[in-house]
Amino acid sequence: MSLISNTPKPPYFAVIFTSTRTEGDNGYGEMANRMVELAQQQSGFLGIESAREELGITVSYWTDLDSIKNWKANVEHLEAQKTGRKSWYDSFKVRISKVERDYGN
Amino acid sequence: MSLISNTPKPPYFAVIFTSTRTEGDNGYGEMANRMVELAQQQSGFLGIESAREELGITVSYWTDLDSIKNWKANVEHLEAQKTGRKSWYDSFKVRISKVERDYGN
Repeated sequence: MSLISNTPKPPYFAVIFTSTRTEGDNGYGEMANRMVELAQQQSGFLGIESAREELGITVSYWTDLDSIKNWKANVEHLEAQKTGRKSWYDSFKVRISKVERDYGN
Repeated sequence: MSLISNTPKPPYFAVIFTSTRTEGDNGYGEMANRMVELAQQQSGFLGIESAREELGITVSYWTDLDSIKNWKANVEHLEAQKTGRKSWYDSFKVRISKVERDYGN
């Protein structure tokens, strides 16, 4: 997976997921890898970018809001969200946004 | 600065800045701290979240597009953008998006 997602010309959508982790792995690393693998198989998926220091930021890109809704409702992903709330994340925020403009080098 | 930005009820705007760095610091660390300090003083600024591993992600939040435009045109920030393109960033992408919905714990 390349680092900066090769997204198409806007508009498209970004899900900005910010979190702080609890102590210990508790199966988190394996789940995180699996969720990236699974997200990439979803309809409407455009890319994913991720970095973690004290704060973790994962941004996934999607063609439309329905694709985001479907991904949120994916059975395996629902299970991960549940364990995330209970065990992995001390705090988190999800922001769903529409990318209107982009540029880079 | 708290880790997850305490943003207001949507809509608001997010600037997603993704980058990979060149080798060496070359004044980058000092500039990065200064830019956070300076951004926080701008009109319309709501918060900033940042993490870097191999990939760096910084998301800043703003009340409106004009505030983002003004921040982009800030003289000291323009100088940092110029040096960023020339020296600090191997690759980068800026995405300007409108946050339509958010939730968290």
